[in-house]
Amino acid sequence: MNNDTICALATPAGGAISLIRISGDRAIDIADMVFISSSKRPLKSARPNTIHFGNIIDSNGEVVDEVLVSVFHAPHSYTGEDSIEISCHGSTFIAATILRMLIEKGCRQATPGEYTMRAYLNGKMDLSQAEAVADLIASTNKATHKIAMSQLKGHFSNDLAILRDKLLKITSLLELELDFSDHEELEFAERGELLALAESIENKIDSLCKSFESGKAIKEGVAVAIIGKTNVGKSTLLNRLLGEDRAIVSDIHGTTRDVIEDTTTINGIKFRFIDTAGIRTTDDAIEQLGIERTFEKLKQATIILWLTDQDTFDEEEQTAIDAIDTNQKVIIVRNKIDHNAYTQSPTQAKGVFRQIGISAKYGTNLEELQQAIYQAANIPEIHENDYLVTSARHYYSLRQSQEALQRVIEGLSANLSGDLISEDLRQVLFHLSEITGNTITTDEVLGNIFSHFCIGK
Amino acid sequence: MNNDTICALATPAGGAISLIRISGDRAIDIADMVFISSSKRPLKSARPNTIHFGNIIDSNGEVVDEVLVSVFHAPHSYTGEDSIEISCHGSTFIAATILRMLIEKGCRQATPGEYTMRAYLNGKMDLSQAEAVADLIASTNKATHKIAMSQLKGHFSNDLAILRDKLLKITSLLELELDFSDHEELEFAERGELLALAESIENKIDSLCKSFESGKAIKEGVAVAIIGKTNVGKSTLLNRLLGEDRAIVSDIHGTTRDVIEDTTTINGIKFRFIDTAGIRTTDDAIEQLGIERTFEKLKQATIILWLTDQDTFDEEEQTAIDAIDTNQKVIIVRNKIDHNAYTQSPTQAKGVFRQIGISAKYGTNLEELQQAIYQAANIPEIHENDYLVTSARHYYSLRQSQEALQRVIEGLSANLSGDLISEDLRQVLFHLSEITGNTITTDEVLGNIFSHFCIGK
Repeated sequence: MNNDTICALATPAGGAISLIRISGDRAIDIADMVFISSSKRPLKSARPNTIHFGNIIDSNGEVVDEVLVSVFHAPHSYTGEDSIEISCHGSTFIAATILRMLIEKGCRQATPGEYTMRAYLNGKMDLSQAEAVADLIASTNKATHKIAMSQLKGHFSNDLAILRDKLLKITSLLELELDFSDHEELEFAERGELLALAESIENKIDSLCKSFESGKAIKEGVAVAIIGKTNVGKSTLLNRLLGEDRAIVSDIHGTTRDVIEDTTTINGIKFRFIDTAGIRTTDDAIEQLGIERTFEKLKQATIILWLTDQDTFDEEEQTAIDAIDTNQKVIIVRNKIDHNAYTQSPTQAKGVFRQIGISAKYGTNLEELQQAIYQAANIPEIHENDYLVTSARHYYSLRQSQEALQRVIEGLSANLSGDLISEDLRQVLFHLSEITGNTITTDEVLGNIFSHFCIGK
Repeated sequence: MNNDTICALATPAGGAISLIRISGDRAIDIADMVFISSSKRPLKSARPNTIHFGNIIDSNGEVVDEVLVSVFHAPHSYTGEDSIEISCHGSTFIAATILRMLIEKGCRQATPGEYTMRAYLNGKMDLSQAEAVADLIASTNKATHKIAMSQLKGHFSNDLAILRDKLLKITSLLELELDFSDHEELEFAERGELLALAESIENKIDSLCKSFESGKAIKEGVAVAIIGKTNVGKSTLLNRLLGEDRAIVSDIHGTTRDVIEDTTTINGIKFRFIDTAGIRTTDDAIEQLGIERTFEKLKQATIILWLTDQDTFDEEEQTAIDAIDTNQKVIIVRNKIDHNAYTQSPTQAKGVFRQIGISAKYGTNLEELQQAIYQAANIPEIHENDYLVTSARHYYSLRQSQEALQRVIEGLSANLSGDLISEDLRQVLFHLSEITGNTITTDEVLGNIFSHFCIGK
């Protein structure tokens, strides 16, 4: 455990109030060196979870600020250590002066995330919960907030803990097998049970792995490409969807040369819109480059808005259609309905999810289009106790754990000896425990055996 | 008094923590509608000045955030009302969600400065102290911080209270005069005393008025103009003084066409540096405009850095010298000492404060120049209980009060009757009380008379 006491500003400059946090063994002592409460009583004698009004006084005896100081006692604080929070006036000069004084009295400037790291090291939260704190602070919409909060509240950790318990049960049963290897009938009875258990764990890990696709889409945003012939109104539509003048709009063919990417939120889900150069044969080198990028971006999109103002697709469009993956969802958007009377459906593109007529210029049917985009994203509704994997680190550990578990299942099916299986089992546990940062000690495995079997002598 | 309960975010977006303040009669009730403490006890039953960990829960029963909630009871809070502070994770989504919930439950979004206005209305501080809060938050250096803190701590208010007491004494003695107007000998004895008292008050108000010059310079920064012929190194010197590449520097004559203004701090005092176009005869219209601006700006400067690389001033420079006011302090800065060997002093400019040789290019003697600038500003050292007037509102009230007081002194000297003087006395008191926002009621005047003279029947 770190013995030094850290301090840092927890709020940005420019507000009414700034908050300085101190954490560590000497937090209260050091705060008492710079703070005089209006009651004249030292913070050392203050009850935990109380707030004290008073002055920060510098070494010349001058008042630096009138502040509120909150006192927290270990382990009942965010970090699990003795902690102080100083709420001062929001002047950068004042905050910098107080921090300098705290450092002179023995604090160290905290490194980024060090409070949460200490909370983890002091057992206030596991690694995945610590990661959720960062996700929570970064959350900008309902979906990312919900997943981060669920992770912070330990729903993911609980799921993993259940899996871990089951794996420890398998481990201990295999150990038993080795201890009582004379009793063949016992061994075979257990094997079927172990296999079923391992398969149910593998199912759960597999569904967590699969949730990463939605989790990643929610965290990073669902990629939507807008494609179509030049001058069909792609930039106008993008501006409508983003609600601001993000792309340059003009009447000249081939205006949008660069791939413009921006995000918006529909029903609490983030969508990344990709505007593209138009599809047409061109001799202009820069524009040709834009069109190449269009095809590149097209491949990355989950949803493709195929914008047209014609009844049928022409040759260039048919070429572009060939680039569409069958996993991608295409929404055919027929623009300029205020102006065009469409008589027949355009030639079908692969994977057409919906056809919709709009006017990008006047915003007609825009809400309908947004809902079609949302539905095409096929984001599962997140319920209170649901958990979607959003972290690549977690996904990687889950996949490694799944691979080891598949070897365990093969071993159990092939009726391999317990000691041959146990190394893979340890790998499963190890990779799962990487997520929450718990380490599986032999003591823990033994402890589990003893508690389950109560041999007790 | 306002009965509504207000809420607002007190910290900017982008930090680890956001702070939401609620103030008003229903603050605790409303907080209880959205917050469930981990102890399950309502905030209503919590002791004042205590901190509570728990969850903000939305109308669907979902956790919006894990927060700390601080409880303050009237009158022991910043506003003097029941108050709540919610410390949540620094996500704009979370802060916006909590504020929206509070507003749904009956809070109103606070207007700028409304917490401090309530503190004033509830008698927690006077007007000048309320103004000091804004100055304190805006303070970026030691001097502005010190003055704002002194004002917040009520040193200025105390000075004014002493003056007010003395003025009330004069008022009550004049009232006595009228009551006992038969006793001529009493009247004349008092008049000399009253005059001396009035003059001592006028002296104090006069010195407060005079402090505004320094106070304003400290608050707004001391204006320093850098002037000299083109290509003498003005922009290079400015960059040196500002410590960054603020002005465009090149070898072409007449590069700096626009007046560039930026600030730096020397010994805790803010200086506003004004870079100027060079002085030279030119046919270029835009450059000519720049030179005209130079002369304009020159008049506003407290300090002029006269940059030269020659032994003597030429005709254009002599023309510019004529524009210098005798109140302005000139520092003759002889640049390029690494390169030029100066043999004689340049022709003296008016009001020369110091001559100093530097190299702007290599930074030679820069510290010496900075100290010369600081000394030329002639800022008085601010002691613990000193007060400098920095607010134009205060200065204006002091001046009006001084003018009325001068009429009182004339009246006393001319031996006018008390009832003729008392209207001017009321004016003096009225303008002084404008500063702190106290109103002088007749009751107060009467109360003062009775307490001083204890006629008591």
